[in-house]
Amino acid sequence: MFRDKIRVVDCTIRDGGLINNHDFDRRFVRETYKALSNAGVDYMEIGYKNSKELFSPKEYGLWKFCDDHEIEQITSGIESRTKLSVMVDVGRVNIEDIVPAAESPVGMIRTASYVKDIDKAIYMANHFRDKGYEATINIMAISRDMGPELDEALHQIEEECGAEVVYIVDSFGALYQEPVEHLVKKLKSILKTKEVGFHGHNHQQLAFGNTIEAIIHGANYLDGTVYGIGRAAGNCPLELLIGFLKNPKFDIRPILDLISHEFIPLREKIEWGYIIPYAIAGMMNEHPRAAMALRKSDKKENYREFFESLLSTGLE
Amino acid sequence: MFRDKIRVVDCTIRDGGLINNHDFDRRFVRETYKALSNAGVDYMEIGYKNSKELFSPKEYGLWKFCDDHEIEQITSGIESRTKLSVMVDVGRVNIEDIVPAAESPVGMIRTASYVKDIDKAIYMANHFRDKGYEATINIMAISRDMGPELDEALHQIEEECGAEVVYIVDSFGALYQEPVEHLVKKLKSILKTKEVGFHGHNHQQLAFGNTIEAIIHGANYLDGTVYGIGRAAGNCPLELLIGFLKNPKFDIRPILDLISHEFIPLREKIEWGYIIPYAIAGMMNEHPRAAMALRKSDKKENYREFFESLLSTGLE
Repeated sequence: MFRDKIRVVDCTIRDGGLINNHDFDRRFVRETYKALSNAGVDYMEIGYKNSKELFSPKEYGLWKFCDDHEIEQITSGIESRTKLSVMVDVGRVNIEDIVPAAESPVGMIRTASYVKDIDKAIYMANHFRDKGYEATINIMAISRDMGPELDEALHQIEEECGAEVVYIVDSFGALYQEPVEHLVKKLKSILKTKEVGFHGHNHQQLAFGNTIEAIIHGANYLDGTVYGIGRAAGNCPLELLIGFLKNPKFDIRPILDLISHEFIPLREKIEWGYIIPYAIAGMMNEHPRAAMALRKSDKKENYREFFESLLSTGLE
Repeated sequence: MFRDKIRVVDCTIRDGGLINNHDFDRRFVRETYKALSNAGVDYMEIGYKNSKELFSPKEYGLWKFCDDHEIEQITSGIESRTKLSVMVDVGRVNIEDIVPAAESPVGMIRTASYVKDIDKAIYMANHFRDKGYEATINIMAISRDMGPELDEALHQIEEECGAEVVYIVDSFGALYQEPVEHLVKKLKSILKTKEVGFHGHNHQQLAFGNTIEAIIHGANYLDGTVYGIGRAAGNCPLELLIGFLKNPKFDIRPILDLISHEFIPLREKIEWGYIIPYAIAGMMNEHPRAAMALRKSDKKENYREFFESLLSTGLE
């Protein structure tokens, strides 16, 4: 039996873009959109809306900026019920650049924020709501911030923010099932008027298991990426999530084709997945940036030294 | 806080042997034993005790047979508190070949059985107990057999068998957390005098998550393999399990070194891990043999056709 309220949000191009400077070519993004549409996926997050005053289009690909006319090219002529989403980071977007939803191909804007920046995130999410977008707040690195500041932020969101969904984002791939249960229950108890979302990272091979755990306790917005692509170890594999959910509106086959034709060759060129330094970072509840740097060095398989270095660093 | 009763059973050489005809060389097995000993792992399962009348030593490596004198060579001179285990399959061993435990380097014998063969497994496990071994019964392919026959088998084990541990074996990588919870609770409620074990397969990236789930509900015998090696998608990665458990007797570092030096090169030669046809077999609760055959064919990345073929096959 399926739960009708569940929404699957594909982040392939957005989170995958974190490992290739958002430089997917238009053909690849169009193929992805087509497959997600045919698979019945509810949302496709196509990238970030970043300010071109802060980041140079010479250094980053199209999906760091997600100009509406680029999105329209990608999607034109493809029959689809998949809505489009973009992500914004607190402090990295000029919100005045965002046109009203009625004039944009984008239907949802997700604001990524640390707990400490929640006031700004609320302001931004309300601004997007006022312009007619669906809005979410995605609380990043939540495994580092599960104390009273989180409670305060959640109460503030519930009271002051029009966002329909609040996400638990396990940026460090550090959560196990019990903390996921704890967090989903906490969010549901405080955010009485909102849906809860879950975005896992796969450092410890728990992104899919934790997503199931979040579903069990009532999360209805679920993130995945094709073949698990995403920063460091990547995310919850969309194909596993589609295979698990029982809603007959989903069809896994277009995703399987997309992996065969596009993602197997891509994985030869860029790296994500189960890689020991990311697992170590996850166990230690650390940002994967040190592990990402290690993988670009000639010590990429020297796990013991990396482990010892994180031990001696401790919390940042 | 750690649970003192938890025992970690490494199956690297035994389950890994299923993908290379048990043909690890002696040096490799000795390095593995050394690392597991230094890591404080409770048991190392070194292979199968198969009858040489049924399988030819010309076709299989040493660890299909696990002669005691071979085991003694591997372990001699290495300081260790790690106990040794071997696995036997119902119908594939001559139990009269097994010497008394007092004369063997092996401390534990695990009998793998389907539900339908449980009478034979009980007989064998009692035989091993009588010879002085610790004994377990590992119920294979349990995701296909969760009905009243399982209950009957469990009652029979509780009443007639001296085995100390009964394992849930997710041979097809088909279990999600809720069935794991259901099974662990069922086993604990019927097997009042025994410990419950869990052996996951990683077809859907759930071996580690399901092992945590089993721990939460009271399983104390936990299987893992170094870098997740094992048949098809492999098993619960031992390094993740060690990283999760809080018992200070475990040290992850020797396992990290072993992966760096031995398993990264090995993975270039033989294949295991997250591979879409295994994921499809897991979703469909099917034995991975069709997927294993596909991976050796020139259609190895043709996922849609494989998916359709399993759909039309249905249950065997």
